[in-house]
Order: sequence, then structure tokens, then C-alpha cells
Amino acid sequence: MGKIDTNETPIHSATDLRSFAAKTAVTVLPGDGIGPEVVGAAMAVADAAGANIAWEIAEAGAQSFAKGITSGVPHATINSIAKTGIVLKGPLETPVGFGGKSANVTLRKLFETYGNIRPIAELPGIATPFAGRNIDFVVVRENMEDLYAGIEHMQTPGVAQSLKIITQKGCEKIARLAFELAKSQGRKTVHCATKANILKQTEGLLKRTFEAVAVDYPGITAKHMIVDNCAHQMVIAPEQFDVIVMTNMNGDILSDLAAGLVGGLGVAASANLGDKVAMFEAVHGSAPDIAGQGKANPTAMIQALVMMLRHIGKFDVAERVSAALKETLKIGTHLTPDLAKGVAATTAEFTQAVIAQLTATQRVWSGRAYAPVEMPKVARNPVTVTPATRQVIGVDVFVEAGDTAAQLGARMTAAGAETGFKLKMISNRGTQVFPAIGGEVDTVDHWRCRFITTSEVGGVSDRQIMALLACVSGTDRWMHVEKLQQFDGVDAFTKAQGESDNALPVTTTPLPCAA
Amino acid sequence: MGKIDTNETPIHSATDLRSFAAKTAVTVLPGDGIGPEVVGAAMAVADAAGANIAWEIAEAGAQSFAKGITSGVPHATINSIAKTGIVLKGPLETPVGFGGKSANVTLRKLFETYGNIRPIAELPGIATPFAGRNIDFVVVRENMEDLYAGIEHMQTPGVAQSLKIITQKGCEKIARLAFELAKSQGRKTVHCATKANILKQTEGLLKRTFEAVAVDYPGITAKHMIVDNCAHQMVIAPEQFDVIVMTNMNGDILSDLAAGLVGGLGVAASANLGDKVAMFEAVHGSAPDIAGQGKANPTAMIQALVMMLRHIGKFDVAERVSAALKETLKIGTHLTPDLAKGVAATTAEFTQAVIAQLTATQRVWSGRAYAPVEMPKVARNPVTVTPATRQVIGVDVFVEAGDTAAQLGARMTAAGAETGFKLKMISNRGTQVFPAIGGEVDTVDHWRCRFITTSEVGGVSDRQIMALLACVSGTDRWMHVEKLQQFDGVDAFTKAQGESDNALPVTTTPLPCAA
Repeated sequence: MGKIDTNETPIHSATDLRSFAAKTAVTVLPGDGIGPEVVGAAMAVADAAGANIAWEIAEAGAQSFAKGITSGVPHATINSIAKTGIVLKGPLETPVGFGGKSANVTLRKLFETYGNIRPIAELPGIATPFAGRNIDFVVVRENMEDLYAGIEHMQTPGVAQSLKIITQKGCEKIARLAFELAKSQGRKTVHCATKANILKQTEGLLKRTFEAVAVDYPGITAKHMIVDNCAHQMVIAPEQFDVIVMTNMNGDILSDLAAGLVGGLGVAASANLGDKVAMFEAVHGSAPDIAGQGKANPTAMIQALVMMLRHIGKFDVAERVSAALKETLKIGTHLTPDLAKGVAATTAEFTQAVIAQLTATQRVWSGRAYAPVEMPKVARNPVTVTPATRQVIGVDVFVEAGDTAAQLGARMTAAGAETGFKLKMISNRGTQVFPAIGGEVDTVDHWRCRFITTSEVGGVSDRQIMALLACVSGTDRWMHVEKLQQFDGVDAFTKAQGESDNALPVTTTPLPCAA
Repeated sequence: MGKIDTNETPIHSATDLRSFAAKTAVTVLPGDGIGPEVVGAAMAVADAAGANIAWEIAEAGAQSFAKGITSGVPHATINSIAKTGIVLKGPLETPVGFGGKSANVTLRKLFETYGNIRPIAELPGIATPFAGRNIDFVVVRENMEDLYAGIEHMQTPGVAQSLKIITQKGCEKIARLAFELAKSQGRKTVHCATKANILKQTEGLLKRTFEAVAVDYPGITAKHMIVDNCAHQMVIAPEQFDVIVMTNMNGDILSDLAAGLVGGLGVAASANLGDKVAMFEAVHGSAPDIAGQGKANPTAMIQALVMMLRHIGKFDVAERVSAALKETLKIGTHLTPDLAKGVAATTAEFTQAVIAQLTATQRVWSGRAYAPVEMPKVARNPVTVTPATRQVIGVDVFVEAGDTAAQLGARMTAAGAETGFKLKMISNRGTQVFPAIGGEVDTVDHWRCRFITTSEVGGVSDRQIMALLACVSGTDRWMHVEKLQQFDGVDAFTKAQGESDNALPVTTTPLPCAA
């Protein structure tokens, strides 16, 4: 795996550190619904705090869709983001009837912002069952792969399949980012939460990559935890966590759970970090029902602003804004309707209260020393792992059939025997059903037939696989094929529940293939 | 979908209701570690409460593995379970070095106990941040399919894949079970939590099936919720839930999260329900570090006993045991070390305290009227959906390549043109990269090439797919093929991020195929 050059200056803070007086260009997307109100509040606070930012206001979301821009993101916006590299983003709507593409996803994919960062920290004045326990951790979620690749194929009319795709490159990038984030915030522990006990190849790839990457960070404790236990521990003892890194789907669920511990999605902020672009936003949506009424709470957006200010190296301004926000929440006299116990303030009044706190005598809220996050340098070569030896030793053919395992087994045994394969087993929903291993398996019409070459030496050729498929086609409908590969002599596929370690004995008197 | 015969007597309670005096046979697996202590405690409480059970003590787990039984479950045990249909089960260990197969999973698969039931209810005397909020719901988790089918194939040396398999039959069974469970406990609402917004075919299949099944239960409110929001809501407002049904992986995470709300996995019980067998157990493990020391807390096992007693129709006994357990926890003078604030009781002392409460004047703990769960009757035919029309319109070929999208695109365009296909697009980790749609996509060496037939009428033949694969093999290594099917004229596959609705124009001057 690639080493990180720790002397390299981080991309986004270099200019800023060299010339603090110069304005930093930031693309700002006011967004839809309450977006303009809360983004406007955050901009006002930033300006009042002396953040010295040159805002480039750009359009995305509902207005763009309405103009016929099917991605929801105009070229002018893309160009601005490509130039500034920093985005403060309001919530974007995906209107019904415009193809259903999300401008949020378009932006994430367009700029490969692979790291979703969700700080989870107690806020003063926001009552939760966990108040006073000093919850303060960060969820780092992979943002580009996993089930979110959205690759789905109905296998049969009643059996659906999604592909969970996890890559070494994706794991290395997100694992390194988690450690770099920990380093930049002086955090001492990084947990990696996976389902590697069940999904040894996909979830296991993150676990193994995490453990390999951890060696480069000797000052940080690296711990693995099973993801269901992690969800449990978040509720039982959330104080134990510092940074937690996860694959995309697990991170989706656990980051929303975590937000619930400290006041909910309404006050949560997130960053989406990539090599060239960093995007900061509130987790909440556009809340069209209260848009334009001065009822929106800009807390989440101001928290996103604080993350952004730290990312561009403006640590003092970030600290002052953060302290002013917390002080305002703690005093509690100018809260928006979602939080107010008595008379509610408007968005503008809350914002003015925060601005007033910027110059008030502040108590120190954070003892944490921040440094810029060094984005990991992982080579962009598509090939990240190169085995010394490799071969194909068989093939899994997925077949649709409405009869029994024994009947299908007889047909597939014949198809294999005719073409230089032995049928090792058939599984149904992951459990071996042929040869029968006993039990009450309630089968569906989607069968995985595992064929292993009968040749003692050398691998399986594509020609041999074609011959097998032709033979299978003679009696049955197939819809999905997976080669069974070995890399460096190790099986690159898992066994079915109940599948033996040894291949079946070769059938000595093959039945004729029906093809 | 199959209708349920609501007049049919439930399988496990019939005998019991007709002849209350006759003993009910139950297979009991004392299990490993603290298993014999906590199972023994539950048996003692059942006997003292007059449950009138004929216990058939059977072996499974570590002892069985040590005797060379590779499944961890001896035939005598299987026979006992097949006969009684009811199991009270202690924790089973899967010792390292015996092939790594779990006796727990073996039992679940062997008897197709497809419904995992996890009651989540506040216990008196157990301090949690949510105490006093009357949390009382049940998580119903599908137990047979999803990513737990464990079908994994490394696609390239650096790219791993797991198949998420969701079936109409599996969804119908678990959705009906959730409604039946609600009915049997007088619960008014069933939530279905899915990720159907992203995984429209797999998670969407549970959502659609749930909505179809709900029509058969007009007295129960059916609500869908996105699963990440459900995790969030569990922490923010857990009181809103009554019954929640989920696919296997989501249910795994959210049921452990839910257990954390009411005291943790140490006091949680579960049932695994199938058509012929119902198995009741504590969620906790065998805790070998405290085994045999009288320190184990039998609360979870006694809760499992209560679930079992209700399942076999002994509602009065169940209620008395449940009330005695809660009274003992509330009084708090005889608690095991995990819960005791002062001097701790032993497992035996705690058990005796519960037994003493059986005959004490009890206050009413539960206002809930229980009835037997009617297990859904879903036909065992593997075929559950039969479209009127179907055809194959193309094929996704997954290719390993280390060069660029443009280079691979040129080769695959040629391969398709030669064989009656047009290359519609290539995606990498789910995002279209050929034809290029712009953006910063960091590619891996695993490319999905989507070929659509150029024929205006009729579908693709297997012979045509073979020709395409032969042509692809001439220049590139493929490892995975998916047919693109249409059922009743509807695409049975999803589009890539950025993929257009229309196929590419047919190439008029095909390049020669390299094969």
C-alpha cells in the first residue's frame, strides 16, 4: 500500500496559511427550502467572525432541475467548485418528475468525495437521555462503493439480487482518512466496525486493510468491533468511541443512530471529503413546509461552517464560532421553535444572538487542538493488488428451476460430466441442498450450481466454460455466472453453508448432456 | 400470495390446549459455559411455576464438536427437536479448530427457523437512559437470506463482492409473521424498515411485499420507514414502535441497537420461529470466563422461557413467571454481580428469589392479552412469481482491466458490434464512466460492461451471449456475467449512476472483434 508523505502540505490550507489576510474563495450553494435561510445565517456568522471568505454563490437543486438541467447541477456551479475546491452547501431537493436523479449524489460522485465525516458531540442546552456523558466522536463513512453502487438484477421473477462491492483501494482510502482525521484532532483511538465474521471477503477486506494501515499510525490505538455490537455499544457506552470507520451501508445506519444520541439529525453536520473537493453541509433536508417563515434552525449549518473553517486552516475563527454557537444554545433565550422552551426566536434573531456571542467574553469550550487533515495519497492506478499466480478452477452457474434439488442435481451432474467439470454442490439461498445434507430447507427457484474442473493440473479455459453453459442451456435457464478463481493458490470465493472442504468424487460414468 | 386459514389451530399449542394436564415435551440444550447454570435456573423456575413440561435434555455445541460431530449437533438432538418441535437453548460455543461451523447456525438452517423475534421491553430495576419511557416493541428479523447467504466471490485480486439475495417468498413469510405476531399480542402497528430508496429491487421487494400483505390485516396499521431513519428514531423516540420487520442484515444491527435501549444483550432473549420448530434462547454468549462460578445472570434465559411458555399456549404460567422475574429485579435485593448495587447474589439465590415471588402476592405487570402466534402458511413451491411474458434483452459482462474507460470502451464496443450487441455503457463501482459523463471517478480494475441487443424484435439467445463472451475473451478477462431480463415488459435490472434511459445508437461500422 502507498505510503503517505507526511511533509506534504494539505491541499486546502496551504494558501490560507501563507497569507491569512487574503480572502479564501468558497463556493456556496444556498439550496432549496430552508436552505437560503440557514446558509445565509452561516455566511453572516462567518463574516462577523472575520473568516475573510470570498463567497461564490452558485445554483444547484430544484431551480436547476426546473431549467432543464437533468443532473441538477449547472456547469457554472461545477466550474466554481472545481476552482475553489471548498463548498458550503444547503439542502438540495430532487423534484419528482425530473428523472429522479439526486443533485446531492451527482455532486458526491462528480468530485469523488469518498469520505463522509459525521461529528457526534454533545451540544449544550439540547436535552437528550445521554446529556452530561461527554459524547464526542466522529463517524467516518465510505461514500463511493458497497451496496450503494446500486447494481441490482432480478435473478428470477421472485428473487432479487444486489451486489455489495468493496475494493482494496476504497478501503485503503477510507481507513487512512480515518487515521488522518484522528491525528488532525488529537484523537487517540480509531475503531473499525465491520461484519467481517460473516462477510469475510467484502467486510473482511476493510478489516484487513484497516489493520494493515494502522501500522503506519503507531500513536493511535486501532480496534476492530463487529458492527452489530458497535450499534449496541453506541447506546450502552458511547463515551468509549473517538473515531469509527465503516463501509457505506453500515456507516449510513450507524451515523444516523449516532446523531440521535446528541440531539438528532436536525442539528447534525457533515463533511464530504475528496482529493480535490471538500463539501460541508447540514444533514437535515430542505423542510419546504417551514421555508421562508424564519423558523429554520441554522445550528446544523453553523456546525458545518465550523468544520469548513477548520478544514481550510482557520482554527481560531472556527473556535470562536463554535463557542458562540454553544454559548447561545446554553443560554437558551434565543432559540428557534424546534428547541425553544418559551417564546421562540426567528432564524435571524438566533443568528444575531450567535453573532453577539462572538464578541462576548467567552469561556473555553474545547480543549482540542486541531490541525489540518492531510488527505491520504493513494495512487489512482485501477490495479492495487497483483497476485504472483492465479487460475480459474471452476464456475458457479446460477440457474432458475421450479423442481427439486435432486432433479436439478441430476441434470447439472450430467452437464458437468460431459464438459470436464464435476458438480460439487448446489446451494439455495446459501445453504447446500445437493447433495442433500438434511434439514427443512424451503427452496426458491434460484439455485447456485458449483462446478469444479476435473483436471488435476491447470485451470479452466473460457472455452470449457462456454461448453458447460451450452450444456446447461440445454435443460435449464441460467441467468448469472461467476468464475471461481484462486489468487496465489488461495480460493477467492466462499463455501456454502454445509459445503464440504473436498470436491465430490469424479463421476466415472457420465450421463449424456441434453444439449 | 397465499391466504392464511385463520381457523387453523396453531401447530404447537393444540395438544397443550386440549389437555392441560398432560406434560408438554420440550428439548432442552443446556449448552456451553454458563449455559447449564442459566438453563438450569429457567427449568427450575418453570417447574416451580407448574409449567408441566417433560424436559428432553440433549447435547449440542462444544461437547459434540469434541466428539468429532462436525456440525456440533448430534443426530439424537436433531431427532429430539424434530419430535418435540420446541427447544429451550443455552449458548453454544463454536470451538476454534473444528472447521469453524457454528452449531447455532446449523440448528437455524436445519429447521428453517426463518423468523428471529426479539422483544425489546423495559425491565424494572435496570437503569438505562430510557428508563420510565415504557419502551415495549418487538423486532422481527428475517433469518434465512440476504447477505447472510454468504455468497462471496473476489472479482479481481483487489475487488470483493457479496451477493445480497432477497426473495419474494422470504419477504412474504417474514412480513406475514410480523403481522401475526402483532395480532397475537394485541399490538396495533407494524413498521417495515428498509433501504428501498436505494436498493429498489432487493430492499424494495420487502417493502412491496409488506404493503401487499398488510391488506390482509385491516386492524393493524402498517408503516414503512427508511432503515437509517429507523435507527435514528429508535434512539430519539423508541416509544413509537410496536413491531418492526426487517431484512436479515439490517435486523441484525437494529435488534442489537434496540437491546441496548433496555439493558443490553446480557438480559435480552429471542425466539427463532419456523414452520415446524420454535427455538428460544438468551441472546448472550457462553461467557466461559465466569462459567461454573454461580455468577451468571439467568434473566435472559428466564425471559426466553416466558416467550416459550406463551408460544406453547401456557399464558397464565408465562405471566406468573414474567411477573416474578420483574418483581425480583424491582426489589433488587437478590441480584447477580452484573446488576447488584450492593452484595451480589449467586445464580441459585437469584433463581430462588424468583421462585419465591411466584407465590407472593403479585401486582399485575402486563395488561397485554396474548394469544398463540399463527405461523403463516406460505406454499413451499420454489416458484412464487410467474410473469406472463419474459425475455432477455442484453447482458452485463464484468471485466478485469487495468487501463482506462476509454480504452476498454473501444474494445468492448468492437466486441459488441461483432456479435449483435451495442455497448450501452461501462460503469465502475456503479457510476457510468463510458461514455464519459465528466467528473473525478477514481476507477478500480472491475468494470461492468452493459451490452444491449441491436435486434428490434425478440430477445437474446444463449448462443449470442456465448459469441459475445468469446469475443470479450479475445482481449479481456471476464469473471462475472448477468443476463439483463425483462418480466412483463419491465426491466428487471437497475441503471448505473449517470446511465441514460436510452440505449446508445447502434455503431454502423463495427470494428473487428479481436477473438
